[in-house]
Amino acid sequence: MVPHLVTALSGPLLELEQRFLAQSAWIEQWFRASWQEYTPPFYSSCDLRNAGFKLAPVDTNLFPGGFNNLNPDFLPLCVQAIMGAVEKFCPEACRILLIPENHDRNLFYWQNVARLSLILRHAGLNARIGSLSLAEPVTINLPDGQSLSLEPLLRRGNRIELADFSPCAILLNNDLSAGIPPILRDLNGQTLLPPLHAGWSIRRKSRHFAAYDKVAHEFSGLVGIDPWRINPAFAVCGGLDFRNRQGEEELADTVSGVLAGIRDKYREHDITETPYVVVKADAGTYGMGVMTVKDASEVIGLNRRQRNRMSIVKEGLAVNEVLVQEGVHTHETVREAIAEPVVYMIDRYVVGGFYRVHTARERDENLNSPGMEFEPLAFDTACNLPDCSDNPDAPPNRFYAYGVIGRLACLAAARELKATESLPEGQNPSAMLASA
Amino acid sequence: MVPHLVTALSGPLLELEQRFLAQSAWIEQWFRASWQEYTPPFYSSCDLRNAGFKLAPVDTNLFPGGFNNLNPDFLPLCVQAIMGAVEKFCPEACRILLIPENHDRNLFYWQNVARLSLILRHAGLNARIGSLSLAEPVTINLPDGQSLSLEPLLRRGNRIELADFSPCAILLNNDLSAGIPPILRDLNGQTLLPPLHAGWSIRRKSRHFAAYDKVAHEFSGLVGIDPWRINPAFAVCGGLDFRNRQGEEELADTVSGVLAGIRDKYREHDITETPYVVVKADAGTYGMGVMTVKDASEVIGLNRRQRNRMSIVKEGLAVNEVLVQEGVHTHETVREAIAEPVVYMIDRYVVGGFYRVHTARERDENLNSPGMEFEPLAFDTACNLPDCSDNPDAPPNRFYAYGVIGRLACLAAARELKATESLPEGQNPSAMLASA
Repeated sequence: MVPHLVTALSGPLLELEQRFLAQSAWIEQWFRASWQEYTPPFYSSCDLRNAGFKLAPVDTNLFPGGFNNLNPDFLPLCVQAIMGAVEKFCPEACRILLIPENHDRNLFYWQNVARLSLILRHAGLNARIGSLSLAEPVTINLPDGQSLSLEPLLRRGNRIELADFSPCAILLNNDLSAGIPPILRDLNGQTLLPPLHAGWSIRRKSRHFAAYDKVAHEFSGLVGIDPWRINPAFAVCGGLDFRNRQGEEELADTVSGVLAGIRDKYREHDITETPYVVVKADAGTYGMGVMTVKDASEVIGLNRRQRNRMSIVKEGLAVNEVLVQEGVHTHETVREAIAEPVVYMIDRYVVGGFYRVHTARERDENLNSPGMEFEPLAFDTACNLPDCSDNPDAPPNRFYAYGVIGRLACLAAARELKATESLPEGQNPSAMLASA
Repeated sequence: MVPHLVTALSGPLLELEQRFLAQSAWIEQWFRASWQEYTPPFYSSCDLRNAGFKLAPVDTNLFPGGFNNLNPDFLPLCVQAIMGAVEKFCPEACRILLIPENHDRNLFYWQNVARLSLILRHAGLNARIGSLSLAEPVTINLPDGQSLSLEPLLRRGNRIELADFSPCAILLNNDLSAGIPPILRDLNGQTLLPPLHAGWSIRRKSRHFAAYDKVAHEFSGLVGIDPWRINPAFAVCGGLDFRNRQGEEELADTVSGVLAGIRDKYREHDITETPYVVVKADAGTYGMGVMTVKDASEVIGLNRRQRNRMSIVKEGLAVNEVLVQEGVHTHETVREAIAEPVVYMIDRYVVGGFYRVHTARERDENLNSPGMEFEPLAFDTACNLPDCSDNPDAPPNRFYAYGVIGRLACLAAARELKATESLPEGQNPSAMLASA
């Protein structure tokens, strides 16, 4: 199945893809050297936006869901990549415990968990699933007729176990938005992947994009492009309390500054689109606490519904800090519906991706909303088949470009994780930006 | 396309596959530990025989041809594996020079070279092809409409180059049967893959199978099987001169000894097949210098044609030493034709395989003959998808078993290469067996 993609073929993106193709030898060598300096996360996914004139990451997930949305033809690629990752992170492991999110009812998510545990089993690992929120075992029946067994976690000394299972390694597919549960602290003799500071109780989007900014500048120097082509501008605004209208003015100023920067760039590059920013919780995920803004005045005097929507994210956590990120217009469409690419990585390898396709949304809206309000469309070819003899925008070449940007975000995450290794929970991110 | 495979489902092989499946976690962990101790060859292929009661490697190639016979769906798997291998062997490499065999006319072989160079290019390497036998550039037109450019090699100081290309790494797809050409010696600042001692001027089948014997015993102890189930018996016979009928009696004695051993094992396991051995040049490949023997008397008084056939291998080299290897009956068929599996590995990863399918041959004959006298049939699924919930002989599970045996042979090659690192050319292999 070839997705019928239509992209605004305004010159610049083609030029970007062309440069990536022509310089793939340098790019791959640069990534190899980078991975020797920075350890990539065990797995990750990256939401991209393709504006025709700009191709940029807008979110990087270190606890990726959605493996069920990947093309099943690329299962062997995932298995091989997991084998490499296990070899690096926990070579002695035979038994692995997967700890998923605490969603009760989201069958899409459980299909992801089933796919992940299948990949782990194919890689020769004895995989079981343990839940942070269960007191009794539970069986979840999936739409494809399979079922998942979830078991309660037991703490025994410095180890996490199931009743009859003592894992060598633990793979979190839970982003720890609610904080680090005591049962996961101070483990000994078990490898925990990814590390606890990858969770949202410590992680900040602003630190990630500060690291990405550096990566994007280094990479752009290498391939000879304006880093703005792949780098979304951003600023952070702290001290907010949406419910009590605290910090509105500061937020408006921040939005105004980022919008002014975008306008300058649009003018410089003769881009006629309307600039916008996305305001999102600096610590959080799942498309909660997200707002699209075209003018600074919009964040003043938000109504009660808007303030409620912005004030809490997953697990009911209050939002005090936001990232104000340059909005990147979505110019890809599938059958006239907006399509946004998501790229999946295991270790340093791009193992596939899919488009979020949505008919009911505008180009500048956020497609990653709770409850799967999009249709996934798997990439039909792999992201590691760049072919100079084909058009730069042929699917394998476009997917290669996505894979390059996805890996840049993955490298930013690697640098971000290294910089935050010894960071205590809840530290003010603004103070950290300089060292990210 | 699912190959319609029929295998003699005599219990034992199913039992073997079942054990591999049930113990895949231990097997994968054991491989991970083994690859930390022994570096796998850059790439390799392994010819297997599946006798129903026995599944064993009969030849391991360190300069594999036939990449064109793999399922094109698994190209991304090859690309990913090459990326890992490059990262290990030559992380700094941007430009790679592929040196193929000197065949002029074998288009099947050139399609392999084209596929290999495609894989290298997809992995982001700038790949060119240099020939050991050319004085002028040559273009080869392939059946699929593509063409290959072969260029003459230049020696510049301690480097090999093309006229306008200075490679960082050199990948041999030439097995050096004719000896190590001076142009390849004493290179400096360029990575040569695989190393020169992997070539047939130094390599001996007997050393490989001595190493495999040890690997098979260790592995069989781990999974609890009789090593004979996966290990072909063998002996070496040296001091031969087929043309002058020198050493016939010694060869007959060696054949007799190996046949006697097989007969004992057949009796022990209630196997009613007729034992046979394959006599093959200890240094050599391409199915030349190979003879199937069911009784020791057959090697006495060979006629002129038989003696000529045995006396030389590729590049006209004389055969003085032979491997007398237990013949493993081929019990797999595709549409009533005999089918023999070949497994392909890049670094430590199984990246695919195919069946050699031949209608005109008997079960105990050698299918790897010059000039492609077989039809290739690509494996339709990958070799890394073991699935305990399916039948042990379901294709993914059978391919997993093939992949396990292929990797055991790859590990034997790794140990063999480590043991022969400092070996001068032409050393008597018999003296080396003990240290393999």
